[in-house]
Amino acid sequence: MDRPVEKPHEAIAAILADDLTAVNALIRERMASRHAPRIPEVTAHLVEAGGKRIRPMLTLAAARLCGYDGPYHVHLAATVEFIHTATLLHDDVVDESSQRRGKPTANLLWDNKSSVLVGDYLFARAFQLMVEPANLRVLEILSNAAATIAEGEVLQLTAAQDLATTEDIYLQVIRGKTAALFSAATEAGAEIARADAGQVKALFDYGDALGIAFQMADDLLDWQGDADVTGKNIGDDFRERKLTLPLIRAIAAADDEERAFWRRTIEKGKQTEGDLAIARDLLDRHGALTSTRDTALDWAAQAKASLADLPDHRLTGLLSDLADYVVARLR
Amino acid sequence: MDRPVEKPHEAIAAILADDLTAVNALIRERMASRHAPRIPEVTAHLVEAGGKRIRPMLTLAAARLCGYDGPYHVHLAATVEFIHTATLLHDDVVDESSQRRGKPTANLLWDNKSSVLVGDYLFARAFQLMVEPANLRVLEILSNAAATIAEGEVLQLTAAQDLATTEDIYLQVIRGKTAALFSAATEAGAEIARADAGQVKALFDYGDALGIAFQMADDLLDWQGDADVTGKNIGDDFRERKLTLPLIRAIAAADDEERAFWRRTIEKGKQTEGDLAIARDLLDRHGALTSTRDTALDWAAQAKASLADLPDHRLTGLLSDLADYVVARLR
Repeated sequence: MDRPVEKPHEAIAAILADDLTAVNALIRERMASRHAPRIPEVTAHLVEAGGKRIRPMLTLAAARLCGYDGPYHVHLAATVEFIHTATLLHDDVVDESSQRRGKPTANLLWDNKSSVLVGDYLFARAFQLMVEPANLRVLEILSNAAATIAEGEVLQLTAAQDLATTEDIYLQVIRGKTAALFSAATEAGAEIARADAGQVKALFDYGDALGIAFQMADDLLDWQGDADVTGKNIGDDFRERKLTLPLIRAIAAADDEERAFWRRTIEKGKQTEGDLAIARDLLDRHGALTSTRDTALDWAAQAKASLADLPDHRLTGLLSDLADYVVARLR
Repeated sequence: MDRPVEKPHEAIAAILADDLTAVNALIRERMASRHAPRIPEVTAHLVEAGGKRIRPMLTLAAARLCGYDGPYHVHLAATVEFIHTATLLHDDVVDESSQRRGKPTANLLWDNKSSVLVGDYLFARAFQLMVEPANLRVLEILSNAAATIAEGEVLQLTAAQDLATTEDIYLQVIRGKTAALFSAATEAGAEIARADAGQVKALFDYGDALGIAFQMADDLLDWQGDADVTGKNIGDDFRERKLTLPLIRAIAAADDEERAFWRRTIEKGKQTEGDLAIARDLLDRHGALTSTRDTALDWAAQAKASLADLPDHRLTGLLSDLADYVVARLR
C-alpha cells in the first residue's frame, strides 16, 4: 500500500518533534508578561495560530545536521520565531491588513497601538533569548538580520507605487522582508553547532536562496493563485500597488499605451473595475508570470545546490525537498 | 563678576565633549542606510532635533567616573540613544501625537508606516551596536531594558482610562517607559568599566531613581507647568485619560460626586469645556499636586543617596546636581 506523500516540512517536523516541543514551550514561557496581560493575549493569537514554524525548523535542522547536541538551538529557534511574529504584527499595521491566515489580524481585534507595542516587546524578548547562548557570532548574525529586515520593509514602502522600481530593488526588498530571516535562521543554526566556515556559508546560501524562491512564489501566487488553496485574495498586491517581479517585468516590456495604464493604476492609484483583469492580460502578453516562475525555480535549484557539501544526513535531503516544495505550487 | 549658572547636564556635556562628539559621529554613521534613504531622513528629524542627549551622557559619565578608558562606552551611549529614538517614533504613533519638542512629529511629516518601520530599524541598529563591545553582561542589561520598556508601554496602554490604576501600577509604568533606560544607561556604563558589583548596583539605583523622579516631574508639569517654559500643553494627560500620580491620588481620595466626575471624564472620556479646570481644582482640594511633588523630591534624594560610595569625581558631583535639577522646575 502506498503511504500518503509526506510534505517535506512535515517530515522535518517529525524528525525534530522533541526539539519543536521544546521551542514551543520556550515560546510560551517567554511571551508571558507578569505586568501586562495584553501581551500574551495578542501574541498567542499569532503564535498559536498554527503557522508552520518553518523558520525555527530551519535553525533546528541546520544545527542538528551539523551535529549539534547542546540545548541552545532551541533558544535560537524561538528567537527567530519571535522576530518573525514581531514583524508580522508590525506588517499588518503598516499594510492596514484585516486578515492573516484566514483569521482577523491583531490590529483589527485589538488596535494598532497594541500591535506596535507588543511587536516591540517580542523584538526585545528575541534579543534577550539570543543573548543566552553567549555566542557573539550568533548575536551578530541575528542582529544584522533584524536590521536587514527593517531596511527591506522601509525600502518596500518607498518603492511602492514607483514604476522605476528595478529587479535589483525588488531583490533587495525580498532579501530584506523574507530571505534575511531564512538565511539567519540556517546560518545561526550552523554557527551554534560550530560547523566549519564552508558549512556555515553553505547553510547561509541555502536559507538565502530558499527565502528568495519562497517570496517569489508568494508574489506570483498573488497574481495567479487559487484563493481556495492559498487563502490569499488574488490581486492584493495590484490593489496595494506593490511592485513585485511579475509587474516589474511587464512594466519593463510595456509599450506607450500599456505604460499609461500602469501610470494610472499603480503610480496614481486610480483603479476601476476590470483593471485587475487587464493587468493580468498584460502580464500574460509579456510572459511575465512564466518568466517569474522560471526565476523562482532557478532560486530553488540554487538552494538545493548549496547543500552539496553538507553532511549526508536525512535532514539535508529533506531541506533539498523543501526547496522543491516551495515552488511546487507554481503552475 | 558672576559667571552665569551652568546647568548640570551642560557641565557634564562640557567635561564629556570629546566623548559626545564621538557618540554623535557614530549615531550619524549608523543611522545611514545604503538601501533606504527614507531611514536617515526620518531619523535625522529626531536625532538632530537637539534633544539633550541625557541618556547617552549617563552612560558616558558612569563609565568615566568608574575609570573606563576604552572605546566602547561610545557604542553603548549610541545604543541607548537609538533605543530612546526608536521608542519616541513608536510612542508618537501610539499616542497619535502631532508635536514633539515644538516640532511636527515624524508620523505627521511622513506617515505612521515610516515611523513604525524606521523605529524597528533603529531598534535593530541598537542591538548591532551593543553586540560590538562583546560584553555579555552589558548585552543582558540592555536587552532586559528593551523588554521592560515595551512591557511598560503596553501596561500604560491597558491602564489608561482605568480608574482602578494603583500607585504600584503607575510605578511599574514609569519604571518601564522612562526609568528602565536611565538605569540601563548608568548600569551598562559601570559594567563596561568593569566596576565592582557595589558600584554597578549604585549606578543602577541612581539611574532608576533619577528616571522615576524625572518622569514624575514630567507628569506633574502636565498639570501645572507653564506651557511657555515646558513646551507642553497643560492637560494633555487629562485629555488622553492617562492615569498619572496626581490623578491617581485625587481619585483615591474622591467622594461619590467626584468619583462620578472622574468616571465620566476619564473612564467614559466624555469631556466638555471647563472639565480640565474642575479636574485641576479637585487635584488641589486633595493636595495631589503637592504630594506628588514631595514624592518626586524623595526619589531625587534617593538618587543622590545612591551616589554615596562612588569614586570622588567631578562627574559624581554633577550627577548629584542633575538629580536636584530634574525636580528643581517643580513648584
